Amino acid sequence: MTRDTLPSDDRHAEPRHGGALAAATARYGFPAGGWLDLSTGINPEPWPAPAPTVEAYARLPDPADLASLMKAARSTYGAPAQALLVAVPGSDVALRLLPSLAPCGTVAVLSPTYSGHAEAWRGAGHAVRAISALNDAAGSDVVVLANPNNPDGRVTAPADILRVLAALPAKGLLVVDEAFADLTPEISIVPALGDPRLVVLRSFGKFYGLAGLRLGFVLGSGAIVERLAALMGDWPVSGPALAVGRAALSDTGWRDATRLRLAERRRRLDLVLARHSLAIAGGTDLFRLIGVADAGALHERLARRGVWTRVFAERPGFIRFGIPRDADLDRLDAALGR
Amino acid sequence: MTRDTLPSDDRHAEPRHGGALAAATARYGFPAGGWLDLSTGINPEPWPAPAPTVEAYARLPDPADLASLMKAARSTYGAPAQALLVAVPGSDVALRLLPSLAPCGTVAVLSPTYSGHAEAWRGAGHAVRAISALNDAAGSDVVVLANPNNPDGRVTAPADILRVLAALPAKGLLVVDEAFADLTPEISIVPALGDPRLVVLRSFGKFYGLAGLRLGFVLGSGAIVERLAALMGDWPVSGPALAVGRAALSDTGWRDATRLRLAERRRRLDLVLARHSLAIAGGTDLFRLIGVADAGALHERLARRGVWTRVFAERPGFIRFGIPRDADLDRLDAALGR
Repeated sequence: MTRDTLPSDDRHAEPRHGGALAAATARYGFPAGGWLDLSTGINPEPWPAPAPTVEAYARLPDPADLASLMKAARSTYGAPAQALLVAVPGSDVALRLLPSLAPCGTVAVLSPTYSGHAEAWRGAGHAVRAISALNDAAGSDVVVLANPNNPDGRVTAPADILRVLAALPAKGLLVVDEAFADLTPEISIVPALGDPRLVVLRSFGKFYGLAGLRLGFVLGSGAIVERLAALMGDWPVSGPALAVGRAALSDTGWRDATRLRLAERRRRLDLVLARHSLAIAGGTDLFRLIGVADAGALHERLARRGVWTRVFAERPGFIRFGIPRDADLDRLDAALGR
Repeated sequence: MTRDTLPSDDRHAEPRHGGALAAATARYGFPAGGWLDLSTGINPEPWPAPAPTVEAYARLPDPADLASLMKAARSTYGAPAQALLVAVPGSDVALRLLPSLAPCGTVAVLSPTYSGHAEAWRGAGHAVRAISALNDAAGSDVVVLANPNNPDGRVTAPADILRVLAALPAKGLLVVDEAFADLTPEISIVPALGDPRLVVLRSFGKFYGLAGLRLGFVLGSGAIVERLAALMGDWPVSGPALAVGRAALSDTGWRDATRLRLAERRRRLDLVLARHSLAIAGGTDLFRLIGVADAGALHERLARRGVWTRVFAERPGFIRFGIPRDADLDRLDAALGR
């Protein structure tokens, strides 16, 4: 909800998502060394974006610049020529819009996953159930899965996705949220796009470390994607998002080096976690999910030491860590150790 | 449409909206002195935004910053305490979303006006008719009007708006697009918000000259605004939009001075237009609508001289000029004169 006032009893609840450092500060005070924010799966070393010009803010975004951005995205994601691609102001807004564009029906969400999916489908009046295995999707009109999944990193093989797709009713829909798929492009279903029942969401901000830019993409070849394009209109994203997005998505050198760098950082984080007997239950190279008896207590202990992590109201036995920069690893180590 | 390829026969058509300088360049070549872009109603002298920090792009926007932005907007727009307010990535996206949230019915659009309104309601399957006077709205389920209107500057008195509202059916909806109302706050219906059938759209980018930021607001007190808030999610606008928007909306000194400055610029533009026997058919202090026998020919003549204006496919007798900076007025004068 974007309401400007929260119900007062929400004031001291844990934030719904990662980030939200103001709420963290309100609850725990501002830490001496500033927050070490490990509460999100956002790359802490962003693509080195030059400061956008005033023109990027001032001028109405030019359709030609939008076309360039989409060309870069199409190439980076390996979209086939016949697939449609829509730029959106963050994949979160897109996944919230999809349910109102789909015919009513039963929705299976491969769970646990990002809470926004079930929230959005329920909000639009669909009957939603959480499934823990893809085989349980049988009989649903809509299937939603994230690949790789957040927060547990579960990977669904493209062949299994295509099997679910083939079993859908004619008016069915399969939504694949590839918010973290930049890390493992080989599992992306984008190159196989063609069936109008398949819709793929891509997030720009996570891998490129620029979540504040609000940029994402929806790919597919059905009427629902055309309808979404019409809803987004001619200026779906900001001028800076057009300029920075296009340049970053075209920077294949940075992308390839970043995959290696994040894998190495993840390895180092895993060593630190292991040293503190924290068992990795899953994750990707942008976050690690840890199974721990009382995640809330660990979250609070770390928060008091200036390390902000993510816990989940509905799953009290897990805590998620984003991947720290090398320079921050000792600080995490110390915070865990005391 | 945000499709990345245009149908090839559209390539040489006039752009659908103002801006789109790349298309202008493709058609007329890049002018020696650069384009004098008078094709939009965007303030050519933006609020002097400091360059946003890298953090504004990198970090996931903080809910606390969103709350601050909305507080500033609420105050600037004079929204009553009980009204809901939603930040959106441009009022254009919001007006395109509203029709899918409204029950189906007959829609009257006070016309001519911004083409996106009728387009959006038709696209969502509603029966849309253009009306030329508010009295003709009787019997419609939904009424859409812009106040002041674009492109003719028509003003609808708040009392007349409330009269239309009172006559709506119980499930009706009145959409008031106040994209240009920063110029004339006394005509805004925002302070009168309370009836759940009334929804108001505000644009940030036009008056503040920062259209590339993609920031707008929707105000109202009905379920449709609550639903829109849920659709927009927790990060509806970019980090830079949060930071710049809040600071600009709080800068009442700039706002008041800008109203006077734009009125003076508009007066000077009117003098130049009159000198060239161009009759003003309407407008606001951000644009002037001119009646002229062959607007297309004038548009093309000016384009060949580097001045980019706005013409309307469906209204060949009109051309619209944005308000030039003082420094650009002589150039316009010369281009009109030769």
